[in-house]
Amino acid sequence: MRILIVGGDAAGMSAASQIRRRQPTWTVEVFEMGERTSYGLCGIPYYVGGLVSNLENLVVMTPEQFERDRGIKVHIRHMVTAVNPARKSVTVKNLADGQSRDENYDQLLLATGAAPLIPAGLEPGVPGLFYIRGLDDAGRIRQAAAHARTAVVVGGGYIGLEVAENLAHDGLKVTLIGRRVANVFEPELQSLAQASLVKGGVNYLPGSEAVGAAAHPDGGVAVKLAGGETVQGDLVVVGAGVRPRSELAAEAGLALGEKKAVQVDRLQRTSNPFIFAAGDCAETHHLVTKKGVYIPLALPANRHGKVAGLNICGQSEKSQPVLGTSALKVFDLGLARTGLGLDEAIKAGFRSAVKTVVKQRSKPGYFPGSGEVTVAVIYDKITGRLLGGQMAGPPDGVGHRINTLAAAITGAMTVKEAAAIETAYAPPFSVVYDPVIIACEVAEKSR
Amino acid sequence: MRILIVGGDAAGMSAASQIRRRQPTWTVEVFEMGERTSYGLCGIPYYVGGLVSNLENLVVMTPEQFERDRGIKVHIRHMVTAVNPARKSVTVKNLADGQSRDENYDQLLLATGAAPLIPAGLEPGVPGLFYIRGLDDAGRIRQAAAHARTAVVVGGGYIGLEVAENLAHDGLKVTLIGRRVANVFEPELQSLAQASLVKGGVNYLPGSEAVGAAAHPDGGVAVKLAGGETVQGDLVVVGAGVRPRSELAAEAGLALGEKKAVQVDRLQRTSNPFIFAAGDCAETHHLVTKKGVYIPLALPANRHGKVAGLNICGQSEKSQPVLGTSALKVFDLGLARTGLGLDEAIKAGFRSAVKTVVKQRSKPGYFPGSGEVTVAVIYDKITGRLLGGQMAGPPDGVGHRINTLAAAITGAMTVKEAAAIETAYAPPFSVVYDPVIIACEVAEKSR
Repeated sequence: MRILIVGGDAAGMSAASQIRRRQPTWTVEVFEMGERTSYGLCGIPYYVGGLVSNLENLVVMTPEQFERDRGIKVHIRHMVTAVNPARKSVTVKNLADGQSRDENYDQLLLATGAAPLIPAGLEPGVPGLFYIRGLDDAGRIRQAAAHARTAVVVGGGYIGLEVAENLAHDGLKVTLIGRRVANVFEPELQSLAQASLVKGGVNYLPGSEAVGAAAHPDGGVAVKLAGGETVQGDLVVVGAGVRPRSELAAEAGLALGEKKAVQVDRLQRTSNPFIFAAGDCAETHHLVTKKGVYIPLALPANRHGKVAGLNICGQSEKSQPVLGTSALKVFDLGLARTGLGLDEAIKAGFRSAVKTVVKQRSKPGYFPGSGEVTVAVIYDKITGRLLGGQMAGPPDGVGHRINTLAAAITGAMTVKEAAAIETAYAPPFSVVYDPVIIACEVAEKSR
Repeated sequence: MRILIVGGDAAGMSAASQIRRRQPTWTVEVFEMGERTSYGLCGIPYYVGGLVSNLENLVVMTPEQFERDRGIKVHIRHMVTAVNPARKSVTVKNLADGQSRDENYDQLLLATGAAPLIPAGLEPGVPGLFYIRGLDDAGRIRQAAAHARTAVVVGGGYIGLEVAENLAHDGLKVTLIGRRVANVFEPELQSLAQASLVKGGVNYLPGSEAVGAAAHPDGGVAVKLAGGETVQGDLVVVGAGVRPRSELAAEAGLALGEKKAVQVDRLQRTSNPFIFAAGDCAETHHLVTKKGVYIPLALPANRHGKVAGLNICGQSEKSQPVLGTSALKVFDLGLARTGLGLDEAIKAGFRSAVKTVVKQRSKPGYFPGSGEVTVAVIYDKITGRLLGGQMAGPPDGVGHRINTLAAAITGAMTVKEAAAIETAYAPPFSVVYDPVIIACEVAEKSR
């Protein structure tokens, strides 16, 4: 049995490792167009600003380690340019010599990941204009930042905010362009993220949109805004979101789903019986809505890759539906979310979805480091079912507090049931009634 | 309707507030033998070491505030010396003038709290020997610490460890006496607590037991150990655990339960139909074992007081069974637990209870502040049901991570179900597979 995997990051290597462990005699080969495997893209903003000093620290496991320790052959700098389902083969181009060849598979896994969205007018090619697609970009941005005094970040999402924070920490004067910031959060939390960004020293231009980029006569890049103004930066980093890399799948005739991600069932099978897909190139299933959704996140990518590997080995393991649990630090503010936002809930058909927002102390007022946590819970006013939760506050609690709500949603709890969870209290950590508990209590009382 | 409440801390004032809100015309009077209401005992160690500068900061709400803002009459410095169920009255002694009087009730709530356990030979009375019963003790300890160079702490539980840490932070040379430390935790975590204590500069004497205390000829207190040695301290703080203050209840003929705590049903009713009990004087029901248990903790005390108040008003609200979720900081180590320990599980009849312990990074290795988290999960090997969880690691995560397991146990999850919870990942907060998830995964694989 010959298994080919396209893509050597989280989903691909998780699958490869599972297959190797369960079927030691099978052939497992991975084609990765870059030079690295299991590179943590999430760490890139922290390298770009110098908090992480060595790019290789972001690599969890190298191709050599995979080969030596797990017996998995990874062909780096090999780009799969076509999938031929009829012949059960892929066309692979060796980027080192430009030569293409066909490789046959019995089963194929597409783990091609995501690609940055490129806003019109900001196409790559302008010197000093960067996208974050891989660790090599991170290295180039770091080099540019080392000689820069000003930077422009385009995009107020996770990556944009993290890059802005890290470049500012590195001493650059940073301007952030974006219509809103942290817009996957409820408006009450967006405004907190914006305030934290500004307090951190970033020059945020609310409501702005970048529509062009060109070399600036005085050096660096001139970013043109929709309003006509231009903003100069010695370097420009665009973090405008991602899209699934699903071109190969589309050209091979595989069904695409939400946001053109490769459509998969709970077993990670595509519309072709010999082709699986997992990770940021694939659609996932939402735990609350039960519908297909495109939520590219590291933990689901790892898990779904593993499930794909198991099922390639003949098991019928179902992948866990996603909640989109995620966290973000913007200077002194942590933000986190899980499940559905209010608009998402209403759009998904929860017509009686409502939201309760509370502000509570993170620790007793007398304790040093106490701050305010804002917690939003989204729930069904009729049934009381918890549908989502979001929060913002001192970073040391928020990134973990969200998991209490993720667990509660996974356990299909109502807000009343979630309000009864017994959380830990000691002054260095929290208050007697944790803000998460208060939010659920207030929600229950509001019904 | 006349409601009397004995005790003005968490449970008593939670009940009083509920009753006042629901039955504005009823008489609600509280007898509190101290001078304060709603004083947070959990904050005392942080005052003793000077981290919290003002004792009054620990008070959530004063008697005057209760009277002015909520219309609740609190008689401070009034000690209830007897309950007379036949006459539906209590005997109250005004500590200001020494006069006793009888007060009638229609319904009575006992919220008398807990008292420190006094090891034989360490009876109060020796100058410089302190117990923590209330804020006044805290004030006296703080005063003594201000002039001291050395301190002895007797007891390696929550209070003992917190007091030792805070006195050491304040610059005192601290010796801690106790057979073990953090002994409500699994042995693997006890040793971590001990190491952190020693690393923090506390002179811990493993296996030691204090059997006597007397004035030391050179000043301060000489604590005598079971082995015959003595240890001198300019002050000595004993934190040897607590027992329910149930003498009034016992003398009134009320049934006592586990550890002589006042026996109550899920409605917080004692064996007398007109008397309720809640908080640290009362037994609680364990969520996992379904049995009576004595777990004096702030959150259940508040909740159960509130439930008692509701039921005094004629509702039939059931109180939430407890998990004993709690957290503790010992210098640079956070410890937390929820549900059953392995021994407790086996004693409670879970014959196939087993434990899985994992050690994982708290954040990506490349991220500053990354440390090791040790997570223990206790579960039923046959059914997979999660019975308890404990952890130790960098404080910023542990005190909240435990709540994920508390939520999972509340949702009656198996380790497999808990392993599927989607936790948040971003480098400042955690790793892709949170240590809690890994522990549950390893547990599931070990079955």
